Amino acid sequence: MSQDVRELAIEQAKKHGGKLEVTPKVPINNRHDLSIAYTPGVAAVCTEIAEDKDKAYELTTKKNTVAVVSDGSAVLGLGNIGAEASMPVMEGKAALFKRFADVDSIPIVLDTQDTEEIISIVKAIAPTFGGINLEDISAPRCFEIEQRLIEECDIPVFHDDQHGTAIVVLAAAFNSLKLIGKDIKDVKIVVNGGGSAGLSVTRKFLAAGAKDVTVVDRVGILNKKDAKNLPAHHAEIAELTNLRGLSGTLEDALVGADIFVGVSAPGVLKPEWIKTMAAKPVIFAMANPTPEIFPDEALEAGAYIVGTGRSDFPNQINNVLAFPGIFRGALDARATSITIEMQIAAAKGIASLIPDSELTTTNIIPDPFQEGVALVVADSVRNSVK
Amino acid sequence: MSQDVRELAIEQAKKHGGKLEVTPKVPINNRHDLSIAYTPGVAAVCTEIAEDKDKAYELTTKKNTVAVVSDGSAVLGLGNIGAEASMPVMEGKAALFKRFADVDSIPIVLDTQDTEEIISIVKAIAPTFGGINLEDISAPRCFEIEQRLIEECDIPVFHDDQHGTAIVVLAAAFNSLKLIGKDIKDVKIVVNGGGSAGLSVTRKFLAAGAKDVTVVDRVGILNKKDAKNLPAHHAEIAELTNLRGLSGTLEDALVGADIFVGVSAPGVLKPEWIKTMAAKPVIFAMANPTPEIFPDEALEAGAYIVGTGRSDFPNQINNVLAFPGIFRGALDARATSITIEMQIAAAKGIASLIPDSELTTTNIIPDPFQEGVALVVADSVRNSVK
Repeated sequence: MSQDVRELAIEQAKKHGGKLEVTPKVPINNRHDLSIAYTPGVAAVCTEIAEDKDKAYELTTKKNTVAVVSDGSAVLGLGNIGAEASMPVMEGKAALFKRFADVDSIPIVLDTQDTEEIISIVKAIAPTFGGINLEDISAPRCFEIEQRLIEECDIPVFHDDQHGTAIVVLAAAFNSLKLIGKDIKDVKIVVNGGGSAGLSVTRKFLAAGAKDVTVVDRVGILNKKDAKNLPAHHAEIAELTNLRGLSGTLEDALVGADIFVGVSAPGVLKPEWIKTMAAKPVIFAMANPTPEIFPDEALEAGAYIVGTGRSDFPNQINNVLAFPGIFRGALDARATSITIEMQIAAAKGIASLIPDSELTTTNIIPDPFQEGVALVVADSVRNSVK
Repeated sequence: MSQDVRELAIEQAKKHGGKLEVTPKVPINNRHDLSIAYTPGVAAVCTEIAEDKDKAYELTTKKNTVAVVSDGSAVLGLGNIGAEASMPVMEGKAALFKRFADVDSIPIVLDTQDTEEIISIVKAIAPTFGGINLEDISAPRCFEIEQRLIEECDIPVFHDDQHGTAIVVLAAAFNSLKLIGKDIKDVKIVVNGGGSAGLSVTRKFLAAGAKDVTVVDRVGILNKKDAKNLPAHHAEIAELTNLRGLSGTLEDALVGADIFVGVSAPGVLKPEWIKTMAAKPVIFAMANPTPEIFPDEALEAGAYIVGTGRSDFPNQINNVLAFPGIFRGALDARATSITIEMQIAAAKGIASLIPDSELTTTNIIPDPFQEGVALVVADSVRNSVK
């Protein structure tokens, strides 16, 4: 990050004292207003909900409010910096929810990193909210926390670090496949990085119809014959992937591959390996801020399409394309969860924002500020709710 | 409540979908804005706080944000209606915080009524907030929850149902004493109702210098010689009160009393008992919506000053005079708790808003919409922080 951006960010935080404000939507200018918005009038609203809990969706902020919950254990690239220090990210996320999808959102940062405590706290505060966005919680705890909350809460729970980027990568892949003229069920996909985003992108490719996905982690290619030596979440993904029973390294996995997805570490993709990939290789190098390979180097080595997480290169894979519209759609539909079908529908919605006539190798994914992104995503999500 | 107010309240809740909105204070209109308010700039803000947790007060919304937390166990006069049904009250309260004192405030309603769980949840979410306003939690659980949280949190925790009304009663009493020309240390005060507000008003009178306070509950006058038969919170207050060792009923307690404070039930104060009180009796009949005695009846029986919780009679004892300014002052001072000294200072601040020249028996307490109430209260509170 440039010194300039760093200084502007700190200056902005100081000037405003954080990024959010909570304002009344109702007038409170005289005793009559007070009697409607507060006592005694409010008792009538309470009574309606006491008689039918469901009316909370009609008569309170629940239906439009999402909590952005973090324990500060895996914040950006900064690691386990704790609750207080994670607040600026949660505030920023909440600001984006409102800006892009008119979702009211509040940060809740937790002074505990105990899985069971986090689960019980989120369950306890859930009646307040229409949805829960989990954020910056470290793996593998984030898997259990999300899964248990999905099962035990009656509102949508979504861990954006796992799914947000994965959904946008999938959208970018849909449009890339159009450009290279291949079908998802026929391509070879290599996912480098077995963290939460890598596993999520893998599952989404599989759910979207991909057959041949290979996941590579620090130990090498995940293979079900090594399952007993792998942590549970890797053993599980090894069962679902690696159709051809590959072993070895990323270099081995890439031979003949169509799509590389890196959610791993700076500079780990060597240009010479791109030369061994299939014709028109597609490279999504998502490590941030320094990608697995820089676009110019990848293109020089023969890459046909390159996307990164950065805004200073074409094809930015930015999760802000996904989460605001996903929650907008889920809230509007009063969905009780955000299923993988809804997530794939979101990816299709994002992809659809680039009409075929405008689709080029440097324009596979919309700009977050393109008008109506969240609306299109929300529509796609809402229409996919069963 | 009139049918009109009831209908308007429900209509308003429906129209707006609750009373609050969470809006960004920073621009997010292009990629540059995004890089300042979100990634990568936000990482610089996180790092500042990771290095010095205290900077959360300078760089996040923490310093201006209060959570209004309820388990829905004792909501208005409606009783234990649960989390969802209590939301409209919490939203209203949050709206008043912003309207009267520019405090950003969010409701958190809890799907548990277990004392220990509530304590651990509030402690866990505390890093998010600059203060916690507990609301509508039933007695006697509310005493332990508040006390433990005051001890275990490093931000102010305040149960408004206990203290808010008590502080405004104390303010009304300060001005009433001026009008009847007596000193607080010389007057006889009867508090009818041993619930959370009654006990709090009693403790505040004692802390403000009163010597002769008698508390009457359903079992009659609380007397320390009966302590072993009383619940703990009543035994404790019996030790501190009833200077003259009285026994009997409210009728007995009132003989020669200067001030009656009712936080009890409709119609329990008989006019003939007022006739047995000291000269110029002061009556605060706070039961809502039907007071312990109606003002006209009390005045006819000889009351000199009458206050109620109602806005349709003079001298409305309204807790909205207190809580916004109290939290404003506590947040501005970065107080770690709201001590009884700060609460008494708040009462003095409220009383000071009626200048001596305007003080009459029907004007002992300011209107909540009088300009600057919260500012004066906040100043008083801030100046009393040690």
